[in-house]
Amino acid sequence: MGDVLDLVIVGSGPAGLCGAIYAQRARLDAVVLEQNYISGGQVVNTYEVDNYPGLPGVSGMELSNQFRAHAEKLGTKFVQAIVKKIETGEGCLWKIITDKGEYLTKSVILAAGAVHSKLGVAGEEELAGMGVSYCATCDGAFFKNRVTAVVGGGDVAVEDAIFLARGCKKVYVVHRRDELRAAKSLQEKLLSLDNVEMVWNSTVEAIEGDDMVSGIRIKDKVSGDESVIPVDGVFIAVGIQPNVEYFQNLVDMDERGYIIAGEDGVTSQPGIFAAGDIRTKGLRQIITAASDGANAVTSVQNYLVSHF
Amino acid sequence: MGDVLDLVIVGSGPAGLCGAIYAQRARLDAVVLEQNYISGGQVVNTYEVDNYPGLPGVSGMELSNQFRAHAEKLGTKFVQAIVKKIETGEGCLWKIITDKGEYLTKSVILAAGAVHSKLGVAGEEELAGMGVSYCATCDGAFFKNRVTAVVGGGDVAVEDAIFLARGCKKVYVVHRRDELRAAKSLQEKLLSLDNVEMVWNSTVEAIEGDDMVSGIRIKDKVSGDESVIPVDGVFIAVGIQPNVEYFQNLVDMDERGYIIAGEDGVTSQPGIFAAGDIRTKGLRQIITAASDGANAVTSVQNYLVSHF
Repeated sequence: MGDVLDLVIVGSGPAGLCGAIYAQRARLDAVVLEQNYISGGQVVNTYEVDNYPGLPGVSGMELSNQFRAHAEKLGTKFVQAIVKKIETGEGCLWKIITDKGEYLTKSVILAAGAVHSKLGVAGEEELAGMGVSYCATCDGAFFKNRVTAVVGGGDVAVEDAIFLARGCKKVYVVHRRDELRAAKSLQEKLLSLDNVEMVWNSTVEAIEGDDMVSGIRIKDKVSGDESVIPVDGVFIAVGIQPNVEYFQNLVDMDERGYIIAGEDGVTSQPGIFAAGDIRTKGLRQIITAASDGANAVTSVQNYLVSHF
Repeated sequence: MGDVLDLVIVGSGPAGLCGAIYAQRARLDAVVLEQNYISGGQVVNTYEVDNYPGLPGVSGMELSNQFRAHAEKLGTKFVQAIVKKIETGEGCLWKIITDKGEYLTKSVILAAGAVHSKLGVAGEEELAGMGVSYCATCDGAFFKNRVTAVVGGGDVAVEDAIFLARGCKKVYVVHRRDELRAAKSLQEKLLSLDNVEMVWNSTVEAIEGDDMVSGIRIKDKVSGDESVIPVDGVFIAVGIQPNVEYFQNLVDMDERGYIIAGEDGVTSQPGIFAAGDIRTKGLRQIITAASDGANAVTSVQNYLVSHF
């Protein structure tokens, strides 16, 4: 422990890494705590990113590496540690308790991102990694020339289906409504693919299989009929949930668990800021997460001036 | 004229170009109106940009070109035209009158940016980017262990000086009055710093240097004496002004002329959105402007769905 830091950034996705870049340039004594060495958050698992301005068509892994290299070049200190608790210390300080030790800091930016939501159906947990996946980019290659299903109707679901259709014999897209939420360009692309079949107005009731996924039990919401579609893999893309497990009772959150904070990252708790997917916001994208990191560090600077 | 567009983006800085990228991916029928062919807004004139995540140490021109190339690759239509007036057309449409003709559109994103107020002294224009800067956050890191001067007495000037003092050997703050306008907490912080020297009641008469800034010529307003302070960099923080000349009476603005809009870009006028430096916001940077472009296009998509 020992020294008091100016800032601890929790998370090394685009928000945390951009925050680190701004913190280094502001000469703050800062540390980035990350669960794993490979930074980039959800971006790492993205096959291709085409909407981060200036780097068209970059892979998620490459973009993550470039962000991290940028932060490292400016001297960012990274520590692989899992935050267990954040509590108030003496004199306006915060104590961050991790599995690798404790940190005393004047301010904290929570940039731990979000994780994929579960369907919560029978077979989902049991068959995770045995045909059930939340990341087409990571696991899609294992299903070459096989049959898969994507569950969801947003951008990610449609992107996943387009990606899978390049290698799979057939891809079902199961969506509970009769139209997709995804961007029109994605919809057009998806519906133009011969090996994609839409399963409209349907919910997945269970994922079937013994050691490996063998099919999904589908319920038609209009007729009420149930049927089983034989598939080798199921890719679940039904949304994300903020990683706030260890930040309960620390800051105010909305009903979905997102930390309530505006674009300046200011939370209900003085000295604690939030950036990226973890906060209440309209659009969760790499560019908006990165912007959050810059804004939060600016708020930290103002906070440090007026409190220390 | 003829066809009705989905969206006209006014301006081709980071906000406008990121907006264009998102608009193309959303398959909107959009046009970007720009004053000049070379896009990038204020970025173009930045010698080196080191805080756009993923592209450390890129030149402003190069970054601008990469943004533009990205937008062009996705099929963005650019028109070099100066907007003279924006007025309501029939059926919720907006008519944009330019020096090259008129456009009918369902929505508009105002992303015309802002310009830094100039001192208007000899050497200022000639040495811009060669030691003369209008953004400490952007360029301060290049002056590590060197001597700089900040001109101004408001919040931004004092924030800039505090920021610079962390890395610079010495920072002079030149102010024409005998007290600062900045917030008291900022003043206290500034005056507590050992390597900051106030130059009260003084105006900058000229910025000196051949290829690079070597000093500033100062006039003491009380005694009338002139002297030269040797510095490596001059940060001019005497205000910025949004480019809203042709948008008067169109949308609500604050007392400084910024278009009042949150991070979603929504203005007081349905169908008119604002992104980047032109809107009310805390931090004006490339990354936050680009984020604004993405957010504004998302708001446009929602607006189009509900109004057309």
